[in-house]
Amino acid sequence: VAAEPRLNVAVLGASGFVGGELLRLLSRHPDVGVVRGFSESHAGNAWGAVHPVLDHLDGGRFEEPNPRAAAAWADVLFLALPHGRSQGVVRELAAADCLLVDLAADFRIHDRERYERTYGPHEAFELAAGFVYGLADVAAERLAGARRIAVPGCFATAALLALHPFASRGVVGGEAVCFAVTGSSGAGAEPGRSTHHPFRAHNFFAYALGGHRHEVEIEEEVGRWTGGGPPCRLLTHSAPLVRGIHLTARLPLREPCADPLALLCQAYGGRPFMRVLDRPPELAAVVGTNFCHLHAALAPGGREVIVLSVIDNLVKGAAGQAVQAMNLALGLGETAGLEFPGVYPC
Amino acid sequence: VAAEPRLNVAVLGASGFVGGELLRLLSRHPDVGVVRGFSESHAGNAWGAVHPVLDHLDGGRFEEPNPRAAAAWADVLFLALPHGRSQGVVRELAAADCLLVDLAADFRIHDRERYERTYGPHEAFELAAGFVYGLADVAAERLAGARRIAVPGCFATAALLALHPFASRGVVGGEAVCFAVTGSSGAGAEPGRSTHHPFRAHNFFAYALGGHRHEVEIEEEVGRWTGGGPPCRLLTHSAPLVRGIHLTARLPLREPCADPLALLCQAYGGRPFMRVLDRPPELAAVVGTNFCHLHAALAPGGREVIVLSVIDNLVKGAAGQAVQAMNLALGLGETAGLEFPGVYPC
Amino acid sequence: VAAEPRLNVAVLGASGFVGGELLRLLSRHPDVGVVRGFSESHAGNAWGAVHPVLDHLDGGRFEEPNPRAAAAWADVLFLALPHGRSQGVVRELAAADCLLVDLAADFRIHDRERYERTYGPHEAFELAAGFVYGLADVAAERLAGARRIAVPGCFATAALLALHPFASRGVVGGEAVCFAVTGSSGAGAEPGRSTHHPFRAHNFFAYALGGHRHEVEIEEEVGRWTGGGPPCRLLTHSAPLVRGIHLTARLPLREPCADPLALLCQAYGGRPFMRVLDRPPELAAVVGTNFCHLHAALAPGGREVIVLSVIDNLVKGAAGQAVQAMNLALGLGETAGLEFPGVYPC
Amino acid sequence: VAAEPRLNVAVLGASGFVGGELLRLLSRHPDVGVVRGFSESHAGNAWGAVHPVLDHLDGGRFEEPNPRAAAAWADVLFLALPHGRSQGVVRELAAADCLLVDLAADFRIHDRERYERTYGPHEAFELAAGFVYGLADVAAERLAGARRIAVPGCFATAALLALHPFASRGVVGGEAVCFAVTGSSGAGAEPGRSTHHPFRAHNFFAYALGGHRHEVEIEEEVGRWTGGGPPCRLLTHSAPLVRGIHLTARLPLREPCADPLALLCQAYGGRPFMRVLDRPPELAAVVGTNFCHLHAALAPGGREVIVLSVIDNLVKGAAGQAVQAMNLALGLGETAGLEFPGVYPC
Repeated sequence: VAAEPRLNVAVLGASGFVGGELLRLLSRHPDVGVVRGFSESHAGNAWGAVHPVLDHLDGGRFEEPNPRAAAAWADVLFLALPHGRSQGVVRELAAADCLLVDLAADFRIHDRERYERTYGPHEAFELAAGFVYGLADVAAERLAGARRIAVPGCFATAALLALHPFASRGVVGGEAVCFAVTGSSGAGAEPGRSTHHPFRAHNFFAYALGGHRHEVEIEEEVGRWTGGGPPCRLLTHSAPLVRGIHLTARLPLREPCADPLALLCQAYGGRPFMRVLDRPPELAAVVGTNFCHLHAALAPGGREVIVLSVIDNLVKGAAGQAVQAMNLALGLGETAGLEFPGVYPC
Repeated sequence: VAAEPRLNVAVLGASGFVGGELLRLLSRHPDVGVVRGFSESHAGNAWGAVHPVLDHLDGGRFEEPNPRAAAAWADVLFLALPHGRSQGVVRELAAADCLLVDLAADFRIHDRERYERTYGPHEAFELAAGFVYGLADVAAERLAGARRIAVPGCFATAALLALHPFASRGVVGGEAVCFAVTGSSGAGAEPGRSTHHPFRAHNFFAYALGGHRHEVEIEEEVGRWTGGGPPCRLLTHSAPLVRGIHLTARLPLREPCADPLALLCQAYGGRPFMRVLDRPPELAAVVGTNFCHLHAALAPGGREVIVLSVIDNLVKGAAGQAVQAMNLALGLGETAGLEFPGVYPC
Repeated sequence: VAAEPRLNVAVLGASGFVGGELLRLLSRHPDVGVVRGFSESHAGNAWGAVHPVLDHLDGGRFEEPNPRAAAAWADVLFLALPHGRSQGVVRELAAADCLLVDLAADFRIHDRERYERTYGPHEAFELAAGFVYGLADVAAERLAGARRIAVPGCFATAALLALHPFASRGVVGGEAVCFAVTGSSGAGAEPGRSTHHPFRAHNFFAYALGGHRHEVEIEEEVGRWTGGGPPCRLLTHSAPLVRGIHLTARLPLREPCADPLALLCQAYGGRPFMRVLDRPPELAAVVGTNFCHLHAALAPGGREVIVLSVIDNLVKGAAGQAVQAMNLALGLGETAGLEFPGVYPC
Repeated sequence: VAAEPRLNVAVLGASGFVGGELLRLLSRHPDVGVVRGFSESHAGNAWGAVHPVLDHLDGGRFEEPNPRAAAAWADVLFLALPHGRSQGVVRELAAADCLLVDLAADFRIHDRERYERTYGPHEAFELAAGFVYGLADVAAERLAGARRIAVPGCFATAALLALHPFASRGVVGGEAVCFAVTGSSGAGAEPGRSTHHPFRAHNFFAYALGGHRHEVEIEEEVGRWTGGGPPCRLLTHSAPLVRGIHLTARLPLREPCADPLALLCQAYGGRPFMRVLDRPPELAAVVGTNFCHLHAALAPGGREVIVLSVIDNLVKGAAGQAVQAMNLALGLGETAGLEFPGVYPC
């Protein structure tokens, strides 16, 4: 039991969906004392005016962003800014003493060519080397003591958690293909054509056929495990869901794998947010939570394995994993503030 | 059987949801020869780029709007413009010879004070008197031979079709209250906060508590039937539906009404799009169609009647009713082009 | 801070939706030590096999129901049985020492005639007088020390919380009409026609037009406040939602009420789960929570007030209110175990 | 223009979802005179009591099934019976003169071993050889004059239409993987756990991981085109949709294919229900219609092609394709009765 809540935590970009989830999780985190939320577009407004479920937390108001002042005050600073916006802030705070957890893509990738072919020029790439890629459920050791963390993308998280038990043991014998499905919250709080209710509500469509940007994250992380193993293709789809990612990965096997389910259990036994099921997981069971549910089966013929993973894109795929990474970096209880089991049916 | 398709029909504002429905219905109407669609924002684009189900109709392209030229060419001109935009166009076309069917609110109301307190100043109100209020299922006689038609609003249509059998017989003894529920397509093709999928998909909320604008239409039309009967209140709600309006009306009775269902049957017997059911209607059964399904029951105690009506807001509540009104005005078969029975389940 | 979790709590009927919510809430309640779930149909199965989000709570298994043994062991016994099934169990346990919280309709009503005209014969009606009607947010005082609690129905909860500030001050001048909308989880875990996804997913329909059974609860409770005030009519509808009730109440006023919103604030100021908003509440903001969000406005003309309330039918309308009532009865913190603020968007 | 409607058409199994679609389409088919619907479970009931959108077709009532009498009366007999039930009926009607269109799996497969390992014993397999596999959009020639037609399964239709342009030209160089997503109507009109609204509405999950039954149909048909080409794997998923199938196929290429989209256009140019789009298709655009929308793109690297196809599972994937096959078999206009373009947004 924590003696006394004590951490000062700041969130930059607190009015977006990921920012709202950070405020929600941190406000109930047993080791967090004060939470402050910063937002350019909503400075002065109550949190509840933007995030209705925070209405109960009387008193929270968005503040005008001032990264230096926030970093000077905070023990932990979360950046929930649009891709490309973290670069400048991180450069400005290069000397800051606080734990810095970035949720954008800016510091996830350590290979400059790989970054720039996907996202374009980077104004502070030299700082990327100082960031730990925060795939919390498999990188607990790398995260211990870290002071700069780049939180993985939502699709990358779902894919990497499905691939890790296989890729890290060297059993994958060729290109992995991941069919991924996402809800509309992944597109953010700003209305647009693809999230206009009349178009989205009873629809299903593929997008980013030329290659989703998260592929490069996956490539780099899998490379860390395998020394440069086979690539992974991501085929992304929009479904009439609000939250969550369902991923179906198909991995060609280098050698027979008698029992892929046992391999999953072995890999994730004891990991608090990883649940290996003896049946295909259902997305609804993880919505609102930091859990990842998994299942695996041999394809008929036995030369491929099918791995299924489901996560909440805003929690395990963003804010929840960020808090988990903070917990691991600071040596707090790994599950602190993240134990909510979900609401079902919902 | 029509010898030869023959009408030239033009739609101004053809790129919106109502415009798209007009193009869809008119393109398959047996008495229509050529359909042209005009749109400021999409001039030059194929219809199918905006309305995917029109993709099959090769060759249709939006044209730059030119109301005078369109009116000179057309036998029938539909105006599917935003509220307030029809006024200027109608004034410009005051002398036009074609049948003019307006789907905006601009010419629905004949009392200037009533119009202006709801919608603000009107630049061509003197022309309103020339418009027939096109509640097609009860105004067939007024519509015969009409040359200027104002198509009722979607909520007004659902409410008036529920009220008509009772109000026109003088059995309503006080204020009617209508609880109405609508899908997101009523808000149009432009994305916005209340139709952003993450906010709308699993949500339900009331709006326009101070009085919905369609109340004045209802008031004026009921006044025509009763000489100024009791008012009608509309309580409107947004549901996680794309199409359709479900309306629950509660009418205080002036005198006992032994069998409200029989009264509905009597009122609408033989009317091709009005179906009186012996059970509460379900919205899904009318989606995509020009039908209105109705039911009525005495409230416990017998002093009030509950009337239920369901319609598709874009068809019976807009484009379908407009085409039906055209059919009646021109002496065509009332159901021509409107016979689609719906898809269920869907 | 609780020194030591200590209560033994049992749930009969733990495999239904309400039972699952009780297990979920009680398992994380700071004053609860051991939770046991009993279920005829699932005895022997793991909780997680029925309620996926309880999968994380290793070890929970449904037990064969034995009411006497459960009551002898438990400090608190929750009955989440079908309507009509609680009667026999309560009679069997008449002498039991534990706090007994019943979630069925069986003991909500104290007037036998009223009960029996709605639900039919009752085999233990003499015990009803011993039950406190557990409308937790307005009956805190009656609940303090109670040993037998009947938890209100979901619609009754939404309606009574909307009506209470007005009815208890005597400002209601006639029949209140409540237009209520519910999600599919209210129909329970057993599949049926009206909850078959193809029929329900994009549909909306009224039901129980002849009068919903919860009307008698509302009548009796309002009678307690007013000495027999004007009745309340419930018009219930099924929406394509999973969770939640949205209620729009229209109350005729006996006398002018200048500021209905202020009256709501005054009534519920300081009540931890009641939030009075300055705008119409949205259902999604309370899903998964024990909160009730409210708003009120004068109808145009000023002779009626419109009150809006939203709740989660399985939490505030069932399991959450039951736990809150337990907290109040036992003198625990009222919000213990119920502080979850919700997930939004979701 | 047909001189006079003339065909007598009967539907066995007319109360299910596919049966209802057949009644709906045939009742408005210009070459059909009388339609009769037979149903064991609903004999005597009005069509509209089961299929609300047929309520407008006054007079239709389900009749007690009598296959011999129906076959003697009918020019065309559709069997919309559960899998396994067609066998006995077809044997009973072996000598019948009418065109027989079977929508079950029973006569789709010509290789007995393949059939029986998937579906178990067959009581009339010797008759299978007489059936033409009715993949209407690519088998027009085989269907001309056919008297026995087996309509493909819904997933098989979506997959085969995506594969045909590539497999039939021999460019596929290895196992095709199809990630398919379906709505709840595919499970039929009978409520069950996986289609219970609370569980299905906001959920997504994989099923039949061990291999979907439609794989053998695909294998056999692809074999016809290629002489036994590479297999096709189907990974099926349930989405919170009512209607439709979205399929993402990934085909390894035997040789470079410079422009897969051009290949699609070439294959399907002039085919009335096949639309090749220059962007990923959206499911909502084909719901309620007999259209298939397709798109294709090279995967990054150029060694695989991604093909996307969307269909309505009950129309193009069942009843619509059956009617199209009838049209082709009898030399009617191929699109007769099937021209409905859809409703969008919906």
